[in-house]
Amino acid sequence: MSNIGICGAGLIGASWAVGFASAGYNVLVYDKNPNVIKNFYKVVEQLADDIAIYKKINLKKLKSQIMICKSIEEICTESILIQESILEIIEEKQNIFLELENYSPLETILSSSSSYLLPSKIYKKLRNKDRCIVAHPALPPHVVPFVEICPSSLTSKEVIERAKEIYSKADYVPIVLKKEIEGFVLNRLQGALLNEAVRLHEEGYASIDDIDISLKHALGIRWAFLGPFEIMDLNAPGGIGDSFTRYRKGIKRLAQQQNSVPEYSNQYIKKLEFEQRKRLSLSDREDRTKKRNKLIALVRKLKLDEGE
Amino acid sequence: MSNIGICGAGLIGASWAVGFASAGYNVLVYDKNPNVIKNFYKVVEQLADDIAIYKKINLKKLKSQIMICKSIEEICTESILIQESILEIIEEKQNIFLELENYSPLETILSSSSSYLLPSKIYKKLRNKDRCIVAHPALPPHVVPFVEICPSSLTSKEVIERAKEIYSKADYVPIVLKKEIEGFVLNRLQGALLNEAVRLHEEGYASIDDIDISLKHALGIRWAFLGPFEIMDLNAPGGIGDSFTRYRKGIKRLAQQQNSVPEYSNQYIKKLEFEQRKRLSLSDREDRTKKRNKLIALVRKLKLDEGE
Repeated sequence: MSNIGICGAGLIGASWAVGFASAGYNVLVYDKNPNVIKNFYKVVEQLADDIAIYKKINLKKLKSQIMICKSIEEICTESILIQESILEIIEEKQNIFLELENYSPLETILSSSSSYLLPSKIYKKLRNKDRCIVAHPALPPHVVPFVEICPSSLTSKEVIERAKEIYSKADYVPIVLKKEIEGFVLNRLQGALLNEAVRLHEEGYASIDDIDISLKHALGIRWAFLGPFEIMDLNAPGGIGDSFTRYRKGIKRLAQQQNSVPEYSNQYIKKLEFEQRKRLSLSDREDRTKKRNKLIALVRKLKLDEGE
Repeated sequence: MSNIGICGAGLIGASWAVGFASAGYNVLVYDKNPNVIKNFYKVVEQLADDIAIYKKINLKKLKSQIMICKSIEEICTESILIQESILEIIEEKQNIFLELENYSPLETILSSSSSYLLPSKIYKKLRNKDRCIVAHPALPPHVVPFVEICPSSLTSKEVIERAKEIYSKADYVPIVLKKEIEGFVLNRLQGALLNEAVRLHEEGYASIDDIDISLKHALGIRWAFLGPFEIMDLNAPGGIGDSFTRYRKGIKRLAQQQNSVPEYSNQYIKKLEFEQRKRLSLSDREDRTKKRNKLIALVRKLKLDEGE
C-alpha cells in the first residue's frame, strides 16, 4: 500500500502512525528531536494495546510498517499525504510546510493536525495551496475514529476527495468543513459546552462533580451514538421539525442567557485545580488516562459490533 | 420496601415506575386518561426489555410491584415521594400539586419531572414548600441513570438529602443544583451545544451529517465516561490548571463568537426536516428509537462492568 509521511513524532504523530499502519499503510516518520524518536516505538506499543481491543493487529507487522527517517526529505519523496503534527505555533508550522513543499511532489497532500489554526494562515507562504488542508483528529487519536478536514478557499475539490478517501481507508470517519472557521466543528461544539459548564460552576449553580455527572451519566451516553440533530429527531413524535417547533422558544431563551464570556482568571483556575485534585491526585492521572483510552476503545468495539 | 407515587403515566411516568420498581420500591400509578392506563403495562414490558440488558429483572415480580390506582388520593396516602410527570404546562402542574398536597402527609416529598419550569413557580400556590423539588430525568429515563434535583430556596436540606437517598436506591445518580436556574444543568449544557450546532449549520460551515458525526464519533465517545472538567484535567501534562492556562485564550475567543441567538424560523426548521428525512424516513424513526434505548443500555452495562 501507499506511503504516508508523519512530520512530528509526539503523541499525536505516533497516534497517526499507528492509525495509518494498522490500516495497512507504510508510514515514514520524522522528528527533529532525537529524544522523541528514542521513545517512539515504546509509545507505538502502548497505543497498539488500545487498538487491539476492537481490531486484530499483529504488533510485529505493524511496527515493521512504521519506518523512522533521518531527514525530512525522506518522508516526502514518495508519500501520498504528509501529516504534520508539530507544536501548535503558527510560525513553526508555516516554516516546516515550506520545507515539506520543497521536498514533496505536487501530488502529495499536505495536511496539518492543527486544532485551531486556519489553513489560510498555516499555508500563507506556500506556492501551491490547492493541495493543502488541515486534518484535525480528536484526542486520543489512535482510538477516536474521527478527523475533521478543513480546506481553505484555495484547496482543490480533488484534493479534498482524495484526503477523505485516504483517511477513510485508515478507519477514520472524515467530515469536511464547507469554509474555514476558528475551532472547526469539534472544538466549537466542545467550547460552547465548556463555557457553559464554567458559567454554571463559577456562578455557583453546581459543583464540578455534578456538572461532570450530567455529562457522563446522561448527555454523553446518548451522544456516544447520536448527534444533536439525530437526537432532536427522536425527541418529539413528529420528528425533528416537531421537536424544534416545540422547544425553540426554550432553546432561544437559553442562547440569550449564554452569551457571557467567562474570565478564566488565575484565581478561578487555581480554584478548579484545588477542587479537581481533591477528586483525583496528580499521581493517579496517568492511570486515569490509560483507563480513558481503554474505555473509548471498548465503546468503539461496541459501536462496531452494533453496526454503528 | 416503601411506596412511590407516580402521577401521570405517559412515557416518563412509566419509565419512573419501571426504574423505581426494578430497584424494589412499590409503585402506585395514577393517570386521569384511561387510554394511557390501558397501554401502561405494555409500555412497562417494552421498557423492562432494555433494563434487562444491564440488570437482572423478574418481569412478573416487577409488574406485581406496580399498581394502577383509580384516584389521585390512593397514590398519596402512604408514599414517601410522589413523582409528577404530567404535561409541561405550568397551570396544570400548579393545580395538580394542590391536590397532591391535600392528599399526602407532610413527610411525603413532592417532586416534579419538569425539564425547565422552576420549582418556585411550580409550587407557588402550595402551603408547605419545604418538601417540594424538581427532579428532572434524562431521556430515555428508564435506562439513563441520571436525575437532577433542583430545590427552590424554600426546600429544606433534609428533604434534599432524603430525595437523594431515594433516587440513589433506585439506581439513579442524583445531582443537586445549589440554586434554581432555567434549564437546570442538563438542558443548559445541551442547549449551549445545540445552539452552536445550529449556528454552524445555518451559517453554512458544515452539514447536519458532519456535525452529528463530530459528536457521535468523537466528543460523545469521551463524554460517555468523562465530564468537561475531568477531560480538561487529562488534556495537559500538569492537569486541569495547566490545561485551562494553555487553552483559555482560545476558549474565551470562542465564547466571544458564540453569542448570537439562532432564529429557528419556520423556514429553517422546514429545511432541517427536509435534510433529516433524507437520512431517516419517518417510518424508520421508531426502530431508531428502540435501537437508541438498546445502545444506551449497552453502554450502561459496559460502564457498570468497568466500575464507572
